[in-house]
Amino acid sequence: MSEIKRPYLLFLGDAPDQLAAKVAQGIRDWRPENVVGQYRMDGCGADVGLPDMSLAEGRRAGAQTLVIGVANRGGVISQAWKGVMREAIALGYDIASGLHNLLRDEPDLVAAAREAGVQLHDVRVPEEDYPIANGRKRSGRRCLALGTDCSVGKMYTALAMDREMKRRGLKSSFRATGQTGILITGSGVPLDAVVADFMAGAVEQLTPDSDPDHWDHIEGQGSLFHLSYSGVTMALIHGGQPDALILCHEPTRTHMRGLPDYALPSLEALRDLALPIARVANPDCAVAGISVNTQHMGEDEALAYLGEVERRMGLPAVDPFRQGAGRLVDALLAI
Amino acid sequence: MSEIKRPYLLFLGDAPDQLAAKVAQGIRDWRPENVVGQYRMDGCGADVGLPDMSLAEGRRAGAQTLVIGVANRGGVISQAWKGVMREAIALGYDIASGLHNLLRDEPDLVAAAREAGVQLHDVRVPEEDYPIANGRKRSGRRCLALGTDCSVGKMYTALAMDREMKRRGLKSSFRATGQTGILITGSGVPLDAVVADFMAGAVEQLTPDSDPDHWDHIEGQGSLFHLSYSGVTMALIHGGQPDALILCHEPTRTHMRGLPDYALPSLEALRDLALPIARVANPDCAVAGISVNTQHMGEDEALAYLGEVERRMGLPAVDPFRQGAGRLVDALLAI
Repeated sequence: MSEIKRPYLLFLGDAPDQLAAKVAQGIRDWRPENVVGQYRMDGCGADVGLPDMSLAEGRRAGAQTLVIGVANRGGVISQAWKGVMREAIALGYDIASGLHNLLRDEPDLVAAAREAGVQLHDVRVPEEDYPIANGRKRSGRRCLALGTDCSVGKMYTALAMDREMKRRGLKSSFRATGQTGILITGSGVPLDAVVADFMAGAVEQLTPDSDPDHWDHIEGQGSLFHLSYSGVTMALIHGGQPDALILCHEPTRTHMRGLPDYALPSLEALRDLALPIARVANPDCAVAGISVNTQHMGEDEALAYLGEVERRMGLPAVDPFRQGAGRLVDALLAI
Repeated sequence: MSEIKRPYLLFLGDAPDQLAAKVAQGIRDWRPENVVGQYRMDGCGADVGLPDMSLAEGRRAGAQTLVIGVANRGGVISQAWKGVMREAIALGYDIASGLHNLLRDEPDLVAAAREAGVQLHDVRVPEEDYPIANGRKRSGRRCLALGTDCSVGKMYTALAMDREMKRRGLKSSFRATGQTGILITGSGVPLDAVVADFMAGAVEQLTPDSDPDHWDHIEGQGSLFHLSYSGVTMALIHGGQPDALILCHEPTRTHMRGLPDYALPSLEALRDLALPIARVANPDCAVAGISVNTQHMGEDEALAYLGEVERRMGLPAVDPFRQGAGRLVDALLAI
């Protein structure tokens, strides 16, 4: 994935509500320094709290890329959106998108971009060829968040730990493996779209040699216990060769996401399966802590649950959204 | 993968030696009923023991597809080979190939095939879109061979068990997941070329509902302990939801294939990692037996080793090449 040029102007389009603009919100929350403002069309129901700008104002403020920060509706890129995109291209913007509908499949945008000499980034699809993994031990340290299920807060946990380390003046990078993470940081690997043989090699390339005291926080994907995506998770572990694992869990979920016949595993089951797998690549790998998504629990219930998990597992158990990632970072530095 | 039309004429080309024609040999060994003869060019150093035929003779004998059963040299499809292929196309043959160089990348062949109304099959690349795995329990039974390493005899084991079951009049299918297996059977999924998100779904599609007493023998790929390909193996286990595992091992190997810094795991380590993974998809999954590739051992040494493994693991341990797959099939039927 070639680097997406920063800073961005965030395209919120005609988002019907705030939820539709969650990619823009993620960029604004985690990398505000990458953004100059937001572009909203008439009737837009979302607002991520940035200055509203026209395309021309965005350029004057230094924006290099118009980032599509909103989900589209109806499975097509609307003519209204494409009008804005063509105007942006004419003004010299690159465009970056994580939409299912690819920019590259729109001949008018492709032609306009070629004429203007700007780039179209479809972050859902790999932009380069990856090598076969070689398993060579790399310098620097790596932390990977693993979930009992998909969508339990792995990206949030990794971003929160990265932010906390940077706040302390420590060396840290967030390594994106999915479309939202790639748009937030401007680079990464869209791992679920990589061809099977090259998954682990793509992760090796994503997390190269670094300083001995530098931590890569690798964005997790899927779950070892999620039948649809477990192969992707496996490649992340073996390509990432993590030194530390953070186990992520959402305790109120009643079944695996999209798989109604499958129950969630316990945190113990995840630990007991993940460690032997991780130690194939890195014999020193350890579980550093537990990250629990307690958004569907009240404060008292959440704190009681976290205390119970902490005693049961003998590891710090934290909801980084409620409590910050400080104790997870402490645990990471202590292993 | 659409079905490759049978029977085949096997193209041995100008193979320098027998080893170069191992794909043709595999087809001839495992599915002789799919083949009418072999086509050899001047100077061919291979012979798989079939009647030599010209292209026209092959057609008269009923051949529908010319299968490239030989590795090419120098990374290009030679003009001499292409001359034969164009002649075959003109005679109405489909062509099937597992070469790295794709037939579809040769404009003259593509044009000739279109004109003649015949198909070009590149079995290294998927010919269809696969679904996301849904994890639904399927009827019928499934056996998957897992290796301590790559290339330890998983395909051979599955083919030998399939043959033994058919010999006994039992219901059995070999399900190919790699190029050689696909050419042998005429269909399958080239799993290492499937996009990450769809690996497990491709395996589900490959091994559909079947009779309660029917066994699918799914061709294994990679190894849970091979960092480069473990994600593919994981998807095979979770997409295949096997009822039975056969553990495969090559005891003289000194390190993982292509990974000189990594030692092979023990059969016990493979069992202990594979069973909890397999039981996510199928709680009743059991290890049925051990298949050992003893080709680099003398007869006495091999038999002593097999006896030792059998006592240690409490499971039948067999080299199906030396001893046949009868005891592995017995064990499968007993679980």
